[in-house]
Amino acid sequence: MVIEDLIITPIAFADPPLLNVWGTHEPTALRVVLQLATDEGIVGLGEAPGGASRVERLMQIREHVVGLSVFDLGRIEAVVHSALAGVGVRERLAAYAPLEVACLDAQGKALALPVSDLLGGRVRDRVEYSAYLFYKWAGHDGDSDEWGEALDADGLVAEAHTLISEYGFRSLKLKGGVFDPATEIDHVAQLHDAFPEFPLRLDPNCAWSVETSIKSARRLDGMLEYLEDPTPGIEGMAAVQASSPLPLATNMCVTAFDDLPQAIDRRAIQIVLGDHHAWGGMRRVAQLGRICETWRLGLAMHSNSHLGISLAAMTHLASVTPALTFACDTHYPWNAAEDLVRPGALVFEGGAVAVPAAPGLGVELVESKLAELHERYLSRKSHLRSDAAYRRTREPGFNPTVPRW
Amino acid sequence: MVIEDLIITPIAFADPPLLNVWGTHEPTALRVVLQLATDEGIVGLGEAPGGASRVERLMQIREHVVGLSVFDLGRIEAVVHSALAGVGVRERLAAYAPLEVACLDAQGKALALPVSDLLGGRVRDRVEYSAYLFYKWAGHDGDSDEWGEALDADGLVAEAHTLISEYGFRSLKLKGGVFDPATEIDHVAQLHDAFPEFPLRLDPNCAWSVETSIKSARRLDGMLEYLEDPTPGIEGMAAVQASSPLPLATNMCVTAFDDLPQAIDRRAIQIVLGDHHAWGGMRRVAQLGRICETWRLGLAMHSNSHLGISLAAMTHLASVTPALTFACDTHYPWNAAEDLVRPGALVFEGGAVAVPAAPGLGVELVESKLAELHERYLSRKSHLRSDAAYRRTREPGFNPTVPRW
Repeated sequence: MVIEDLIITPIAFADPPLLNVWGTHEPTALRVVLQLATDEGIVGLGEAPGGASRVERLMQIREHVVGLSVFDLGRIEAVVHSALAGVGVRERLAAYAPLEVACLDAQGKALALPVSDLLGGRVRDRVEYSAYLFYKWAGHDGDSDEWGEALDADGLVAEAHTLISEYGFRSLKLKGGVFDPATEIDHVAQLHDAFPEFPLRLDPNCAWSVETSIKSARRLDGMLEYLEDPTPGIEGMAAVQASSPLPLATNMCVTAFDDLPQAIDRRAIQIVLGDHHAWGGMRRVAQLGRICETWRLGLAMHSNSHLGISLAAMTHLASVTPALTFACDTHYPWNAAEDLVRPGALVFEGGAVAVPAAPGLGVELVESKLAELHERYLSRKSHLRSDAAYRRTREPGFNPTVPRW
Repeated sequence: MVIEDLIITPIAFADPPLLNVWGTHEPTALRVVLQLATDEGIVGLGEAPGGASRVERLMQIREHVVGLSVFDLGRIEAVVHSALAGVGVRERLAAYAPLEVACLDAQGKALALPVSDLLGGRVRDRVEYSAYLFYKWAGHDGDSDEWGEALDADGLVAEAHTLISEYGFRSLKLKGGVFDPATEIDHVAQLHDAFPEFPLRLDPNCAWSVETSIKSARRLDGMLEYLEDPTPGIEGMAAVQASSPLPLATNMCVTAFDDLPQAIDRRAIQIVLGDHHAWGGMRRVAQLGRICETWRLGLAMHSNSHLGISLAAMTHLASVTPALTFACDTHYPWNAAEDLVRPGALVFEGGAVAVPAAPGLGVELVESKLAELHERYLSRKSHLRSDAAYRRTREPGFNPTVPRW
């Protein structure tokens, strides 16, 4: 089954004004959808983080994969590396990732097998996700959106209640790095009091110095299952981990295989947050899982703002990865209303998604929605993400530098 | 596609009197063949090291896998672990390995795809093997077999010429640990002189002390691409590697994922010899490949006496593993006359085997040969391998203890 075309559709979809260390999510989030058309009429789907340069790199690949078999992933990857020889290996792997997903989707559709079977078979039939809590403005335009404002503990607790009642989540993650550590630790304590049975995580996104991280970790002990990326860099994380009672997790100082030897040697982390979009595809994250198992590291899963194709891929991948011992992150609830896959394939029950049993990823594209989101992309002023610039529309002096405290 | 039966056939096949550190290969080598019968009439093939206890463990698995889908490898592996809960995890993984191969063979046959495609796609279309040189007696019975005696450098050089002319090998490996180090180093030097363009390896199978290994490695420098397992244990190897100009390889101190953290931390080795039979299947060795790539270790492939099903599996696996940077070991030429797969599927050209493009492993069983080799197994006095006992039939005082020098 040969690739006849790779249709690359940059999209933008509505995103609430979620706050993080770099600023605030803009009114639309950028993503890119791949449709890999084959000579058998089967179309494989892929989804990846968007933005001009990522789309550009996919465009550079396009002509080189036409004519290759969707089963020939070794060669497809080689072609990506050679077409993108001018950029770093991480950028190349990020470009290959959605292509691998689309090929596996096409393979599964052709073979009448779910992607999980192609990856070695499920070790679980349901994949747990955690409720991803954010500080947020009430709305983009001064009015309030359906979620409302969450800039204090009450707002976060209300948000958690909403997410739990709609999705059944059984664990919580707070995106921190927004307020000073004392304030966020107080909010975590209140979340912990409100949901004492729920494992809880905090991700300050490197907002803290080593010293602040150690002090904060000691105060957070007993409230968190892990603390994610309190401070930048492997050496910084190692210094924190050496004096922290909490296990540290990362999707920032370890984002590729090359980062692992030093991180392990320095004992910088206890949990890796994998992400097939960043690590170069689903098979590579399964391999990361074996590494985590071997070095007794935990494995969780990172997420960016995403839609259903990525959720399906994450779910298949998590289902075949024994090392995954934590609920996965997902932004999905924040963007679910904008999804471009046909409803019904991915259902949250008790915070978990059942692995689709249908062929391939098990999701179908709603073409009209794709067209709508592409229009939205075209009408967007810039094709770069800038959370900082958007934050400055309300806080002119905002400075995204980290560590901040 | 559901497993209806797992037919387990222990076999014995003619093996020349090859010498190693533990003794001499007996007149027949033990192996076991799996035929995994499915409800669609497709039969998946697997091959593994034999002997009574290994066969027994496969028998214990048998009833538990009947009724499972051949695509459901996650569950099949879980079932193996639970059926064999009484033995160590390495033994369980060794039992799972040929079952994984047989399932992948059945999957490929059902899907009309070569196993290499199921494993992620080839990164090479031909897999290089090295000529595996052994010291050997002239024959088992006092007469000379077709290979003749090889107990000195001339014998080894003649053996190499035979192997090269029949198979086209472009690299050489000598199984050492038979004579004292000075003698073997002299033989290596003569092989190096006779084949100056051929990468050469020596495997003393832990016959040497740390001190002897260091001295020998220094003398061997410039003649070998790597030195394999000169001395036992990770700590011993680390001590040698620290003072050795030669890279060290192992299939003895690192035989499972659990061995890697210490071996890497201690810088004990530079090359791992993978073996899907020992490591728990093909997917796991592909994962080992990613580990080697990540920690900048070389990857080569270990072999025991084997026939064509294993050769096919090794070839598919090697074809999808980018990290594999050395020619693979194979005993195949020593046992090729006894093969039970239909000729033509696995052809050596220039020392390499083209990856079969036919569905599954790409090999078919000759049922009559399987029956013949099973009869040979039944008529064998013992179902345990004992190279030492066999050596003692000619050298009564032989003692297999290592390190010896």
